[in-house]
Amino acid sequence: MNGAETVLRTLLNNGVDACFANPGTSEMQFVAALDRHPAMRGVLCLFEGVATGAADGYARMTGRPAATLLHLGPGLANGLANLHNARRAHTPVVNVIGDHARSHKGLDSPLESDIEAVAATVSSWVRRPMTSADMGPDTAAAVAAAMSAGVPDDPDRSRTGTSGAISTLIMGADLSWEESAPPAPHLTAPPPRSVTRADVETAAALVAGPEPVALLIDGAGLGERGLQAAARIQKATGTAAFCPTWPARLRRGTGVPAIQPLGYRAEAVSRQLAGVEHLILVGAREPVASFAYPGRPGILTPPGTHVHHFVPEAGFDVVDALTELADTVAPDTLAVLPPTQDAAPPVVNEPLRTENWAQVIGALLPREAIVVDESITEGMNTLAPATADSAPHDVLGLTGLAIGQGIPVAAGAAIACPERPVVCLQADGSALYTISGLWTQAREKLNVITVILNNRSYAILRAELDRVGGSQAGPAANALFDLGRPDIDFTAIATGMGVPATRAASTTELAEQFTTALATPGPHLIEAILQPT
Amino acid sequence: MNGAETVLRTLLNNGVDACFANPGTSEMQFVAALDRHPAMRGVLCLFEGVATGAADGYARMTGRPAATLLHLGPGLANGLANLHNARRAHTPVVNVIGDHARSHKGLDSPLESDIEAVAATVSSWVRRPMTSADMGPDTAAAVAAAMSAGVPDDPDRSRTGTSGAISTLIMGADLSWEESAPPAPHLTAPPPRSVTRADVETAAALVAGPEPVALLIDGAGLGERGLQAAARIQKATGTAAFCPTWPARLRRGTGVPAIQPLGYRAEAVSRQLAGVEHLILVGAREPVASFAYPGRPGILTPPGTHVHHFVPEAGFDVVDALTELADTVAPDTLAVLPPTQDAAPPVVNEPLRTENWAQVIGALLPREAIVVDESITEGMNTLAPATADSAPHDVLGLTGLAIGQGIPVAAGAAIACPERPVVCLQADGSALYTISGLWTQAREKLNVITVILNNRSYAILRAELDRVGGSQAGPAANALFDLGRPDIDFTAIATGMGVPATRAASTTELAEQFTTALATPGPHLIEAILQPT
Repeated sequence: MNGAETVLRTLLNNGVDACFANPGTSEMQFVAALDRHPAMRGVLCLFEGVATGAADGYARMTGRPAATLLHLGPGLANGLANLHNARRAHTPVVNVIGDHARSHKGLDSPLESDIEAVAATVSSWVRRPMTSADMGPDTAAAVAAAMSAGVPDDPDRSRTGTSGAISTLIMGADLSWEESAPPAPHLTAPPPRSVTRADVETAAALVAGPEPVALLIDGAGLGERGLQAAARIQKATGTAAFCPTWPARLRRGTGVPAIQPLGYRAEAVSRQLAGVEHLILVGAREPVASFAYPGRPGILTPPGTHVHHFVPEAGFDVVDALTELADTVAPDTLAVLPPTQDAAPPVVNEPLRTENWAQVIGALLPREAIVVDESITEGMNTLAPATADSAPHDVLGLTGLAIGQGIPVAAGAAIACPERPVVCLQADGSALYTISGLWTQAREKLNVITVILNNRSYAILRAELDRVGGSQAGPAANALFDLGRPDIDFTAIATGMGVPATRAASTTELAEQFTTALATPGPHLIEAILQPT
Repeated sequence: MNGAETVLRTLLNNGVDACFANPGTSEMQFVAALDRHPAMRGVLCLFEGVATGAADGYARMTGRPAATLLHLGPGLANGLANLHNARRAHTPVVNVIGDHARSHKGLDSPLESDIEAVAATVSSWVRRPMTSADMGPDTAAAVAAAMSAGVPDDPDRSRTGTSGAISTLIMGADLSWEESAPPAPHLTAPPPRSVTRADVETAAALVAGPEPVALLIDGAGLGERGLQAAARIQKATGTAAFCPTWPARLRRGTGVPAIQPLGYRAEAVSRQLAGVEHLILVGAREPVASFAYPGRPGILTPPGTHVHHFVPEAGFDVVDALTELADTVAPDTLAVLPPTQDAAPPVVNEPLRTENWAQVIGALLPREAIVVDESITEGMNTLAPATADSAPHDVLGLTGLAIGQGIPVAAGAAIACPERPVVCLQADGSALYTISGLWTQAREKLNVITVILNNRSYAILRAELDRVGGSQAGPAANALFDLGRPDIDFTAIATGMGVPATRAASTTELAEQFTTALATPGPHLIEAILQPT
């Protein structure tokens, strides 16, 4: 068998059976091998940022990496922004980047570039097999490295998806077409580490003690088991529990203990953490502002609050640590669950705006929905309250703030979980970065409803200009925030990509169209036109 | 004035007066400064690859760099593929990348990444001003570095646009909002160097000698003056003259001495160079294959042909060198011009296909059109013959083979030359990488006609699979080449972006729609549906 087939079969041996691809000449042998191995699902993406975002969404839901198949340095570069988000989400991803044959590298041919340098900015592991004999072992090592933070393939999906890393395998064209060694067998990644009993005792003393304590939980701790443990701790000791603004994956809804997301703005976080003496990090990082602003602190923990690193951000079993802490301080306590939701209040018919669109979605959200949240300004303060009492669901957030994640992540999540409806809440400006992901949703007949939150501007930038001490925006600045002149017609674009689309201007229209879309298989797009507030 | 305004005013002082922008929070001060300096034209792009491609197109036509304004590492990454093409075109570009404040860099906040590492893969010059006092001088140095290969601002545009480099200035947010030093004055870039008299004598002896000689010309040598000199040499000595397949900028049409582009395929180049004893490189690189193929050579010069480096690829005055060579070997020879074009033959009405679409465009191409060529397989063998006798025009090629250049480069060229019609010949698959450039064309009311050459596949990959020795494509491989299921409707997408669009299935329809579009200001898109051949 040739080297590309060795790579493909080694991926399969190591549990990687989906490949989000935008191939070129150097990846042709891998493409040809797909026909000999139907166990590998090849998914065509029309832009590399769709492929990398889809791989992220897939792994957030399965806990197992997908492969991407990308074409040399420019192909990798096109996919880099969503790999940045995946890195911040601790998602396992295995990039397979085709490159020139070894004999061709020295010729500086047109597509030649420094793949390793670009890959290293997002990858924990980068390797270029140098001989045919390396193709199998290096591929197995790539998957193990992506899983190195120890994400078990957990059938109940209660703790998957957010503790891996990005591996990049650079596959030379000649090694792909030459005869190669047999595929490498499964290589077991090291399991996640456990915190020590002493760590648990230290944390227990804090949460059981007299001073105000808050937990900041991330990663697998935001699945159902972690949230149950946090709720027990909270009930027994009065400890507060927070999560990041936009975590990689958060379980929410009726029957799930609620956790409070930290606000996006520093001022909101200051209010939330006011009076907290001890902030205990549980698979989370200390909260910092997304950007610096003149005269404001970058670290959001209030001055004087002690920060304790209980469970590191990656590589540790957050769920077991939280459970052990709960068993220590609250051995006999059961989590208090919010009361079962009443029937959702009827939607009052009014023009759509920031304050009401999320209530429509929250009221209609189906059980086990996967909510991909790139709503940014439109959802920053409205989505969490509006969906707190929705049917149980998972929310996938914009971890690295590189916009253009929503549509691709939704595609990947839908491929991972074909039985679950995916609802992608997508800001208008951000949608355009990876808009061709709609076509992949159509090609693969995915059950994704994309709701474009069309406020016809980069709304966040208007606020940011003021916050960095800029003057009032004049016409030239406003022209760079304004997505009008001409207005973008997302229903036309979606139709052109093969996704049926409708436009909603009122709450009733949104509710009707959302209900219809849920009842109809395949992808749909609803363009929600939001009135200025 | 604050640091962002110092940067902006220094750019203006150094002749940079267009800025293709996709800004974020860290660039807000620069955006605000645009209102105080209307001499800088800010052009909003909805994806960074549009901004970088537009900067490339702008500079290919003006010989002067534009600025890009991009948001941190992910924003730069999204623009990297078209910077790769610009680097291969030797286009001067000045990237202004906003970054976090110095106090914020250590916090590893969500958008933090290694900007320098990504920038270095395409830039000749990367610098991060470290103090307020550096902002002006570093900006002036960035422009000079972009012009360092010495592109004079040439009013007759006969030798502009293809001898610069990419500079990346990383602008910290705090240095942008803090009080800064006054803007730096104009910093003169070193002029292009000249070849020596001995170099000319050596080349002259070869072209005047008895052995078969060919010139391979690139860069500014492909403007009208360079081509005139090459034609004189050719007439006096019988020397052949070639240019690369897809040069950055090539002058063509009636009244312009013709030059033969090398074929894309190695076999075609072998035929073209068969029997050549001496290949003289004039601002060009030795031709190499785009990709390696099993058992085929990567270097395309026939074995035994001597390669002579007369004028280096960058930093030298190609036009003067060619002219001096012509004055030496052909002092009294005038270039032979092709006969004035007869009236174009009437278009025979038939279904559009690879063999006839270019003839329609060639017959109707208006005087001084700028043709942006990303037609790839559809134009590889058809465009050059079909436009040889067209009205005089410039062709801008896909220099770095990173697809998704066409629509952005067309936007930038149209902004550079508002009086000239721009015709963008755009393959369907490639169009989707940067499709939102259509919106920028609509926003700026640019006279661009985009002709989508819709063959509903990544046609080049079908051929490539065979060439790398892959098996016949089966259904899984075919699924990754096929752009159908669903078919993409480019007229709907264009309409959604604010660009009027029509669809043509026959030569007559294409001719009518092209004629109408030429007569109507603003952007247009024609989706040419090509029948399989």
